Amino acid sequence: MKKLNIALIGYGFMGRTHSNAFRQSSKFFDLQYEPVLKCVCARDAAKAQAFADNWGYEGIETDWRKLIERKDIDVIDIAAPNNVHADIAIAAAKAGKMILCEKPLSMDGPQGKKMVAAVEKAGVPNSVWYNYRRVPAVTLAKKLIDEGRLGRIFHYRAKFLQDWTINPELPQGGAGLWRLDVKVAGSGVTGDLLAHCIDTAIWLNGGVEKVNAMTETFVKERKHSLSGKVEKVGIDDACAFLARFKNGSLATFESTRYARGHKALYTLEINGEHASIAWDLHDLHRLQWFDHKDEGQVRGWRNLHISDSDHPYMKHWWVPGLQIGYEHTFTHQFADFVKSLEKNDPCSPSFREALETQYICDAVLKSGKTGRWEKVTNVK
Amino acid sequence: MKKLNIALIGYGFMGRTHSNAFRQSSKFFDLQYEPVLKCVCARDAAKAQAFADNWGYEGIETDWRKLIERKDIDVIDIAAPNNVHADIAIAAAKAGKMILCEKPLSMDGPQGKKMVAAVEKAGVPNSVWYNYRRVPAVTLAKKLIDEGRLGRIFHYRAKFLQDWTINPELPQGGAGLWRLDVKVAGSGVTGDLLAHCIDTAIWLNGGVEKVNAMTETFVKERKHSLSGKVEKVGIDDACAFLARFKNGSLATFESTRYARGHKALYTLEINGEHASIAWDLHDLHRLQWFDHKDEGQVRGWRNLHISDSDHPYMKHWWVPGLQIGYEHTFTHQFADFVKSLEKNDPCSPSFREALETQYICDAVLKSGKTGRWEKVTNVK
Amino acid sequence: MKKLNIALIGYGFMGRTHSNAFRQSSKFFDLQYEPVLKCVCARDAAKAQAFADNWGYEGIETDWRKLIERKDIDVIDIAAPNNVHADIAIAAAKAGKMILCEKPLSMDGPQGKKMVAAVEKAGVPNSVWYNYRRVPAVTLAKKLIDEGRLGRIFHYRAKFLQDWTINPELPQGGAGLWRLDVKVAGSGVTGDLLAHCIDTAIWLNGGVEKVNAMTETFVKERKHSLSGKVEKVGIDDACAFLARFKNGSLATFESTRYARGHKALYTLEINGEHASIAWDLHDLHRLQWFDHKDEGQVRGWRNLHISDSDHPYMKHWWVPGLQIGYEHTFTHQFADFVKSLEKNDPCSPSFREALETQYICDAVLKSGKTGRWEKVTNVK
Amino acid sequence: MKKLNIALIGYGFMGRTHSNAFRQSSKFFDLQYEPVLKCVCARDAAKAQAFADNWGYEGIETDWRKLIERKDIDVIDIAAPNNVHADIAIAAAKAGKMILCEKPLSMDGPQGKKMVAAVEKAGVPNSVWYNYRRVPAVTLAKKLIDEGRLGRIFHYRAKFLQDWTINPELPQGGAGLWRLDVKVAGSGVTGDLLAHCIDTAIWLNGGVEKVNAMTETFVKERKHSLSGKVEKVGIDDACAFLARFKNGSLATFESTRYARGHKALYTLEINGEHASIAWDLHDLHRLQWFDHKDEGQVRGWRNLHISDSDHPYMKHWWVPGLQIGYEHTFTHQFADFVKSLEKNDPCSPSFREALETQYICDAVLKSGKTGRWEKVTNVK
Repeated sequence: MKKLNIALIGYGFMGRTHSNAFRQSSKFFDLQYEPVLKCVCARDAAKAQAFADNWGYEGIETDWRKLIERKDIDVIDIAAPNNVHADIAIAAAKAGKMILCEKPLSMDGPQGKKMVAAVEKAGVPNSVWYNYRRVPAVTLAKKLIDEGRLGRIFHYRAKFLQDWTINPELPQGGAGLWRLDVKVAGSGVTGDLLAHCIDTAIWLNGGVEKVNAMTETFVKERKHSLSGKVEKVGIDDACAFLARFKNGSLATFESTRYARGHKALYTLEINGEHASIAWDLHDLHRLQWFDHKDEGQVRGWRNLHISDSDHPYMKHWWVPGLQIGYEHTFTHQFADFVKSLEKNDPCSPSFREALETQYICDAVLKSGKTGRWEKVTNVK
Repeated sequence: MKKLNIALIGYGFMGRTHSNAFRQSSKFFDLQYEPVLKCVCARDAAKAQAFADNWGYEGIETDWRKLIERKDIDVIDIAAPNNVHADIAIAAAKAGKMILCEKPLSMDGPQGKKMVAAVEKAGVPNSVWYNYRRVPAVTLAKKLIDEGRLGRIFHYRAKFLQDWTINPELPQGGAGLWRLDVKVAGSGVTGDLLAHCIDTAIWLNGGVEKVNAMTETFVKERKHSLSGKVEKVGIDDACAFLARFKNGSLATFESTRYARGHKALYTLEINGEHASIAWDLHDLHRLQWFDHKDEGQVRGWRNLHISDSDHPYMKHWWVPGLQIGYEHTFTHQFADFVKSLEKNDPCSPSFREALETQYICDAVLKSGKTGRWEKVTNVK
Repeated sequence: MKKLNIALIGYGFMGRTHSNAFRQSSKFFDLQYEPVLKCVCARDAAKAQAFADNWGYEGIETDWRKLIERKDIDVIDIAAPNNVHADIAIAAAKAGKMILCEKPLSMDGPQGKKMVAAVEKAGVPNSVWYNYRRVPAVTLAKKLIDEGRLGRIFHYRAKFLQDWTINPELPQGGAGLWRLDVKVAGSGVTGDLLAHCIDTAIWLNGGVEKVNAMTETFVKERKHSLSGKVEKVGIDDACAFLARFKNGSLATFESTRYARGHKALYTLEINGEHASIAWDLHDLHRLQWFDHKDEGQVRGWRNLHISDSDHPYMKHWWVPGLQIGYEHTFTHQFADFVKSLEKNDPCSPSFREALETQYICDAVLKSGKTGRWEKVTNVK
Repeated sequence: MKKLNIALIGYGFMGRTHSNAFRQSSKFFDLQYEPVLKCVCARDAAKAQAFADNWGYEGIETDWRKLIERKDIDVIDIAAPNNVHADIAIAAAKAGKMILCEKPLSMDGPQGKKMVAAVEKAGVPNSVWYNYRRVPAVTLAKKLIDEGRLGRIFHYRAKFLQDWTINPELPQGGAGLWRLDVKVAGSGVTGDLLAHCIDTAIWLNGGVEKVNAMTETFVKERKHSLSGKVEKVGIDDACAFLARFKNGSLATFESTRYARGHKALYTLEINGEHASIAWDLHDLHRLQWFDHKDEGQVRGWRNLHISDSDHPYMKHWWVPGLQIGYEHTFTHQFADFVKSLEKNDPCSPSFREALETQYICDAVLKSGKTGRWEKVTNVK
């Protein structure tokens, strides 16, 4: 079995999900590469070491530039905050490393475009961790749509609702809270949550032509964890937008961190001429399926428990009726990445695919300011 | 349009549901008989008059024997407590009246047998208000089963859970509380709630061969509303039983008034070789349907919203997506009763059919005492 | 008991719901006026007569102008298509009649303004049948919001999804299909479905400042039932809009008749600082309630079964656990209308309140064309 | 960090869940022992080696007796079929090994008693993998009950429904199908599925006094995978029983492999004087909670999403809103086992606690034959 030497940059929440994926993938999927947890990189050496000890990384680095120079690393996995994705990725590409990058790809489209150029010029395998594509229920939705079962698509709707920032005393910035700091995160719910919704949407329903958005920052000022000062909040606390897909379908998207009662309620629904699909992250192991071809008197939404061996990814886990959880989506993505190496195929979503989401986010944020429909920049 | 002169005995909860059914049926169903609310009968003249005024009954009686003698009455509707069903029904039959009787038919099987004999000897139309047969979702279940879609039946399970008697200070007996008084009600949850479960079960799944029951009275003594004294409680507060149907299927039944959080949670499920059905009174307008013939990857429980015009009874009401409620089941039953008169057919469930439920209840209560399997007496 | 002589104009779906409400209200609510079904008015005398016979109207008229001249009519109930609401209502007001008008109030805001002026000049009681305010679950939501339990409101979202016009062979115009004919209906889903969503929203969450909409007509041409010719479709098949309420909250609204699998899926959700509420017409007897004040480990969405006597309207119906249906909302509204007469109070929503919805619809339709945020005209 | 050398016997479904638990526990929980995957033991050397290679076991054995003699093994983990549990466990105890045993403990009570005697005589740590105790939702239920929030308990009900053996062509015996072979499994659904229900029940609700059961074997003969002959089926395909707990509460239990539409539908509900709890394995990350103390108008079942840091075990995983899956329950159990070693405490359920379940199963199977109430043997 060939070795695949991995270096992880960042040790936060996403560092954990990725590390778990590296460890679990080869136990449940039949892979030709054995991932080796070579190194974890972070500025705080003590924390990096503790993380390495826990997850079994062989060593640590405190400077990602040094890491990239190392010959014994095959894959650079970027799990650091958004504002450093580009520098790392471009340098890693130049160094000929394969690159896995946590979403969103970049701070904005133009930056992402440079990243795409870098990886494509270098010809290195690359993928972005839009993990929800690999929820088995969502993967099944993709399959059903691709089989043409829905017919013409009329509507797409998605939302991602949270409630963790309602408290105005919550500070912004620093460990665990950098998502509230616009300089580090780039944007608020748009890049953090809507990016997920958009990635799934373009995967399932194709490109977006234009958008019309409304954004809001409910809490205007928050203390900054690092400066200790009350600073203006630059992120969008909430964002909703209308969209028109290239296939003629209409869409609504919404995200907020002010929806009391919802922790991570990512829901999506797609309505076609013949059938409809709905899914909800709070019960990610279920898919709702409505097929108009069913006989009238027994026609209704089918509540699919995605745990059977004929469901995507599920034969690798347990037995029918037994559900998997959130972290498995990362394991699936890493297993697929390894398989893509075996076949010398791209691993979806590539940086290029993820750039499309970036351009949509840009148009959304722009429309939030102009109050008008904004065209989405074409990736090519 | 022919007139159908109706006299109602009793003005409680069931008096209201029946009166509503008489009034509504001809507005929503195309019937050849016009129900005329001729008379309401109760011992308390003032209350009877108030009830008559509200619902539009032409007059009142305070003695049901006089009522039965009246020539201008076609139908006697018994909505009085259980302990007077038999006397009234037998007298009404002798007087040649059609009879509608609130469930349960009688205090026990032997008494019910006399009632059956009386109506059959007199040759009068008769029916018992087991209204849940006419919930459209339940009627659809019957249709699907009769079409053979389930194949061999393996399991039946039903329960009826309430929580209104947990408070030990609640008295027994008297208006609104006669269901707690064994002398008036005959039994507790067995005759009140399990009788409903049993009636539906034998309708859907055929006869019961034998039962094995457990009964309990959690609160042993309660003040009696009429005597004012603390008296022993004679009813069963809870009853669960195992059963074997004649078709070889196994069943569990349970009812209680001590299931905190449930008001009228009547649920049923039937599992066949090919398909399964589940239903729940708290959402009576829905039916759960699972068909193993569905393609594997999109096989799941279908949540049917029983509001389409191809669902039983529903074309008579509103438009798809709009639900009906509890009282409509009585309207359906009365409409069916009128149609049965038009066709000179029996109206299910007849006294004879309801007697079967009575015998099962008898076996259940007996088994609750003996702790053994008890055979169910055959109706014929 | 005083008589309240009612004349109904129109005998379609809404004619039935209103007639049922007139009949049922006094049976379940304690009212000082007895509604008398005096007359039904429609151009087709035979159909009007059949309707009158079924529902017990004393007579018929074929010309609404004659009807309005009659001295024996107290209330004119308008259940005719949208394009005749204004003429009838203005004439009825001049004749001093009380007026009940099916929603939407008018074809557009300016027309509605004249109607408001007419009824207010005449000083006649008036109300519009926005029946969903009287779903007990929705009424409870209003109560909880008014009690301040939600705190500052951040988000409102509503949608009304149907799927009955997906078939392009479905004609437009004529009986049962006038909702597809823009000349009769005024608009498509905006006036038909979003008007409901908007009415509830402004009742629960106050006025709307501005909107930004997207509209679409998926099927561009349909045969017209009356002309027999294929004609351009003028209505909006789908409409989604963003909105900002005057209280600072953000909203998304969406409606379509192209959402496969949904018959009448009107859902609403409101997220406040302390609590959230959600409701769904397909299970109208339930309300979802989330209260952040609940202890953390047992905090979750409460699924309320709105059937208890302490829930709005429910003590008038059956016992806890037993649900009511769609038509009851009209009965509640009529009972409330009669009570408003007793107290000489306005009955919500008045024409003036319904005009606000009309102005919002106008802004939505305008924005659908301009692609910009449009301010909502103030009612006063 | 101290090493804990583990040997696994068996490489089937449970071998995988245990191996995963060993690997994952120290990554997510702060443990003082590091589990070392020392050896996997199975008769088929090639398969054992493949399993070892996949999961990272250092070596293999093909004879469990040799394994037990090895000095470098601390823990014997029994994941082999039921009929070898006793021999292995007793020998391992004599050799002073710690023992983890897959459920059910034994083929029957008397055999289990010997196992208990062996481990207690040897004084070795021991635990049985009744993993559902460590579903966070179930653990929370235990906590709520222990805090006295339910008050007096009236009812307990549990069922475990599957549908995988409906096909009569399915053979019995051999790899993956030994659960159908009574000589290897001991019983059918009683030992396989009801044992889970019973273990949870006695944990949550205390001891069972007596039971009254009904068992059935729907398919009487099946081909045996090993002999190749059609042989009589000795297991119970379905079993339902009534029970009385020592605390006076009434219970119903049911299990079957013939409930079309259910894969692993383990549900439980407990009704107390003040509150009720319900749970369902198909959505194992949710708990239903009803508290009668809630204010009447907003009282309802709370649907708890067990993913917050104040829920049992959950702070070790991801962030609120993100669910875990089935295998995590084993990880929790192993983490708890390690912690019990650290504290020198027993790890629930011990062999002794698991013996109680065994005695209840014995009484159930006996009652299935006698048709009477059978007392449960006391563990001591």
